[in-house]
Amino acid sequence: MARGLLCRAVGVFQLSRTTPRLSGPRFYSQTEPEPLTLRQQNNGIRRIILNNPKKRNALSLSMLESLRENILADADSDDLRVIIISAKGPVFSSGHDLKELTSAQGREHHTKVFHTCAEVMAIIQDLPVPVIAMVNGVATAAGCQLVATCDIAVVTEKSTFATPGVNVGLFCSTPAVAIGRAVPRKVAMEMLFTGTPISAHDALLHGLVSKVVPEERLEEETLAVARRVCQTSRPVVALGKATFQRQMSQGRDAAYATACKVMVDNLALRDGQEGIQAFVEKRKPVWSHTADKAHD
Amino acid sequence: MARGLLCRAVGVFQLSRTTPRLSGPRFYSQTEPEPLTLRQQNNGIRRIILNNPKKRNALSLSMLESLRENILADADSDDLRVIIISAKGPVFSSGHDLKELTSAQGREHHTKVFHTCAEVMAIIQDLPVPVIAMVNGVATAAGCQLVATCDIAVVTEKSTFATPGVNVGLFCSTPAVAIGRAVPRKVAMEMLFTGTPISAHDALLHGLVSKVVPEERLEEETLAVARRVCQTSRPVVALGKATFQRQMSQGRDAAYATACKVMVDNLALRDGQEGIQAFVEKRKPVWSHTADKAHD
Amino acid sequence: MARGLLCRAVGVFQLSRTTPRLSGPRFYSQTEPEPLTLRQQNNGIRRIILNNPKKRNALSLSMLESLRENILADADSDDLRVIIISAKGPVFSSGHDLKELTSAQGREHHTKVFHTCAEVMAIIQDLPVPVIAMVNGVATAAGCQLVATCDIAVVTEKSTFATPGVNVGLFCSTPAVAIGRAVPRKVAMEMLFTGTPISAHDALLHGLVSKVVPEERLEEETLAVARRVCQTSRPVVALGKATFQRQMSQGRDAAYATACKVMVDNLALRDGQEGIQAFVEKRKPVWSHTADKAHD
Repeated sequence: MARGLLCRAVGVFQLSRTTPRLSGPRFYSQTEPEPLTLRQQNNGIRRIILNNPKKRNALSLSMLESLRENILADADSDDLRVIIISAKGPVFSSGHDLKELTSAQGREHHTKVFHTCAEVMAIIQDLPVPVIAMVNGVATAAGCQLVATCDIAVVTEKSTFATPGVNVGLFCSTPAVAIGRAVPRKVAMEMLFTGTPISAHDALLHGLVSKVVPEERLEEETLAVARRVCQTSRPVVALGKATFQRQMSQGRDAAYATACKVMVDNLALRDGQEGIQAFVEKRKPVWSHTADKAHD
Repeated sequence: MARGLLCRAVGVFQLSRTTPRLSGPRFYSQTEPEPLTLRQQNNGIRRIILNNPKKRNALSLSMLESLRENILADADSDDLRVIIISAKGPVFSSGHDLKELTSAQGREHHTKVFHTCAEVMAIIQDLPVPVIAMVNGVATAAGCQLVATCDIAVVTEKSTFATPGVNVGLFCSTPAVAIGRAVPRKVAMEMLFTGTPISAHDALLHGLVSKVVPEERLEEETLAVARRVCQTSRPVVALGKATFQRQMSQGRDAAYATACKVMVDNLALRDGQEGIQAFVEKRKPVWSHTADKAHD
Repeated sequence: MARGLLCRAVGVFQLSRTTPRLSGPRFYSQTEPEPLTLRQQNNGIRRIILNNPKKRNALSLSMLESLRENILADADSDDLRVIIISAKGPVFSSGHDLKELTSAQGREHHTKVFHTCAEVMAIIQDLPVPVIAMVNGVATAAGCQLVATCDIAVVTEKSTFATPGVNVGLFCSTPAVAIGRAVPRKVAMEMLFTGTPISAHDALLHGLVSKVVPEERLEEETLAVARRVCQTSRPVVALGKATFQRQMSQGRDAAYATACKVMVDNLALRDGQEGIQAFVEKRKPVWSHTADKAHD
């Protein structure tokens, strides 16, 4: 399915190869090497596709940099409302590229790989728009971390999730940061100690993913979530997402102090008042999508 | 069901209109305006009923003040052992009254609304007795926050839960404080970003509610939980509830230090020793319900 | 099942009576009093069996000290890879011995009991090897706390879990430290306030246990998990387990800083590089199980 959409849409895909030369959009041509991630944007919905199925969409340093670039590009533009991250091929992502983690690469390179990965995860959570993982297949190690990190994850029944690093002598300690905050402690522990995959059903049960759908409905269901986001006001969502991250790291009373102030600020937004006026007047709201204050 | 009980019990309901005049209990009369919340107490079980079904039991400032008053009234009396909060009509509560949140009302008023709401939530969690939400219908926004905040929630199969504020330009940031601490992060995020309701079944699955029952058994099942609480010692429950809140905000080692000291203090209570003596002697305990220390 | 295995294995069980005399291993003889916990170790898998079924495996001070001794004995030896804690008889553990908690025993003794219990729980989580609870029956109060504390719990369908202390006037505040961190807040609250047991199925649903299996497969399934752990590298698992505990107590950014550094340290281990080399060379890794650094 994802592949089918990709083929149809390929003419308008933007490249990202994370080289300085590629500052603007280009059109994809068959003679160039395949970019590591593809980016497409329509009606506020940005699609980013992990595009290295031969390497099981490994999160190599280049892949992470490409992903980061495609997430951050014009992220503050009002045109962007939501991001969907999916993958080409049967593997969503197999995690880090182990060939980059040999002694030969050296400690400094290893550090760069993990810092870049953690940075991408933080960017996703700190971004002003929701990020949805659309998963149809296997997501392991840092690939599973990516799913755990996204705000919403819509996945097919055949998708599986694992942190098998322990089997290759590299405990999934960085994936555990995201997974340990998404699922109950015992679920995380068993995944980490045994490397055993969990099914989409169990992932849903334990909060690792948001929705499990039949493969033929994956695009449709994911886009339905994305379109719901597009019907809301951008600055309202941005304020809400940032506040959720902030208050969840605080104690209850501090969290309420944070959130109460934000509610009042939200109401002071033009879109905050427009929404309430529309509700009172029983009409559809017309969002400005700007951070303008409401007229008092 | 709730309505039936309400009619039968109405003669002994106490009013609360949160005006200074209403400092003592009164009897309800058909000629007066309907109070916003009703209060009844029998055998240690206080019933508080949100009583504004025409306005979908909106948590207006008056409603919040009425709720606060009825929760706090004689809360330290030994006669009170547990509180059940339910609602009249098909909507448990639709959350804040949006008409109170227009620019016309002004920033100061908005602040007062959210502070009062957060205060009610804190009061429920800090109260010395358990608070049970008994839900038969829709609970949205601050109404959903109220369910998430109660210690226990017994709900009917048809009940649904949502944080749809984003649809009216007001992200449910304060409800998110309670909901984000009750359910897995991804469940909260999808509710907050899309406003889509979740079913009673999913709410149970993810820990937002404690029990889902058929509508005709709602009263019975809720009262069964309340009666179990009534069979225990008041100061023991008060100590346990306060300790749970405190230790959960601490790291593991500090939490154990807190809880170990509390266990020893609990044993020093007269009821702590009575319970153990009764167990050893294979008889039913007779609680003093006082905070008296045991004789050494 | 567990009893059958116990009988067959009894000749090689090590005693622990937590007296200074018992510093080394001995063989069990029918003429001696039964030890409170039994210890057996084969191929890296240590079995510790709570062995006081007549007293429902109460976690008396002696039992806790015996358990502590058997957990800590040679815990740093490379021969130990994983611990399985199970119990003889139909009750996994009924929690503290209430006879130790009467006024007659005194405040100082009470304090010692709870501190020792909390210490055992901390030891389990801080141990360099995973600890698995294998449960076939009732686990209540501190017995439930023990299950919640273990890294993994494999339990039979008939097992139940409860914190009924409130019924004997002693609120399960110390068990709540472990249980409150394992399951959603509302699940914990209902267990604590009502004392009502939850089924193995509900315990799985809410993350209190890792796996529910038919009784006849309990040994087999638990040993399968233990054997998976044995196939991994000891220092890698030790590093991973310690890091999980540490980062989970931190905020997201600090957690990533911790975990990123650990990933680089993990790669610098001989076994970290061996695992990756083996993966690249498509062969089975041969672990050194030492904390040696890889050759650069």
